Amino acid sequence: MNNNLIQTIFARRSIRKYTDKAVGEDEIRTLLEAAMAAPSASNRKPWHFVVVTRRETLDALAERHPYAKMLFQAPLCIAVCGDPGISEHSWVQDCSAATENLLLAVTALGLGAVWLGVYPQQERVAAVREVLGIPGSMIPLNLLAIGHPAEEKAARTQYDETRVRWECW
Amino acid sequence: MNNNLIQTIFARRSIRKYTDKAVGEDEIRTLLEAAMAAPSASNRKPWHFVVVTRRETLDALAERHPYAKMLFQAPLCIAVCGDPGISEHSWVQDCSAATENLLLAVTALGLGAVWLGVYPQQERVAAVREVLGIPGSMIPLNLLAIGHPAEEKAARTQYDETRVRWECW
Repeated sequence: MNNNLIQTIFARRSIRKYTDKAVGEDEIRTLLEAAMAAPSASNRKPWHFVVVTRRETLDALAERHPYAKMLFQAPLCIAVCGDPGISEHSWVQDCSAATENLLLAVTALGLGAVWLGVYPQQERVAAVREVLGIPGSMIPLNLLAIGHPAEEKAARTQYDETRVRWECW
Repeated sequence: MNNNLIQTIFARRSIRKYTDKAVGEDEIRTLLEAAMAAPSASNRKPWHFVVVTRRETLDALAERHPYAKMLFQAPLCIAVCGDPGISEHSWVQDCSAATENLLLAVTALGLGAVWLGVYPQQERVAAVREVLGIPGSMIPLNLLAIGHPAEEKAARTQYDETRVRWECW
């Protein structure tokens, strides 16, 4: 068994406090490679990524999203966007799998991140669309605040046997 | 950098051919622990898992889902189900993240799997609901066919720079 990977899955926690250190371009590239390795329905890959490091844009996102105050400190935000035009039924699922890959890669690199939901809350979609100039044919699914962690959280599984049925419901 | 994890993300491929060997209970437990370590909106954990190993049930799923013929051979199927009652807006995203964690754990254990979409195709939802006895308040999101791999696929990223924008769209 590759315990290393399983432990990284348990170690991925929502990290909302970051140091001032920037995330390197090589690290950003690795995060995006991990995201795009996700499965998608009929391998349509209905995802796009907007990488934000400009302080004024990060601040604008923090001001416009109700739960994104940590973007005032974070050195990096990646907005995961979906293209319903090429995968009407599955873009949310596919982009969510890509997001989880990205968050696990964040953990593997020793970085920290938190998933900030955008879609389907229409006021958040409109705000992110306006700040980042996202065209009407694309939909921002989430914002990922990313940085070098300034808080620690213990690994965990949250396994709950009441959520498991055997053979049938 | 934890290259091991990044390489496992690249090594996760859709595996549709399996040997006869059963998947062990300890392995199934690890897969479910990985799934439930996923993030969810407000940590609501809107997921349930139906674990199927009975041949007649696997065959019934293979017969009723249009792209699930590999379940005639697979020794294991896990149906990931969502509970919209506790997370109306985010259950698809949360259950998709849990699914991706489970698929990465499959890869880490040396197993192989493929994600078979169910929701939102209503005829598939109805068929899976009927075969597995899933109550009306829950929605089957997907079926995961799992086994010991009888085919090999190369690791890959699918990185595409045209899907990346810098600072704004």
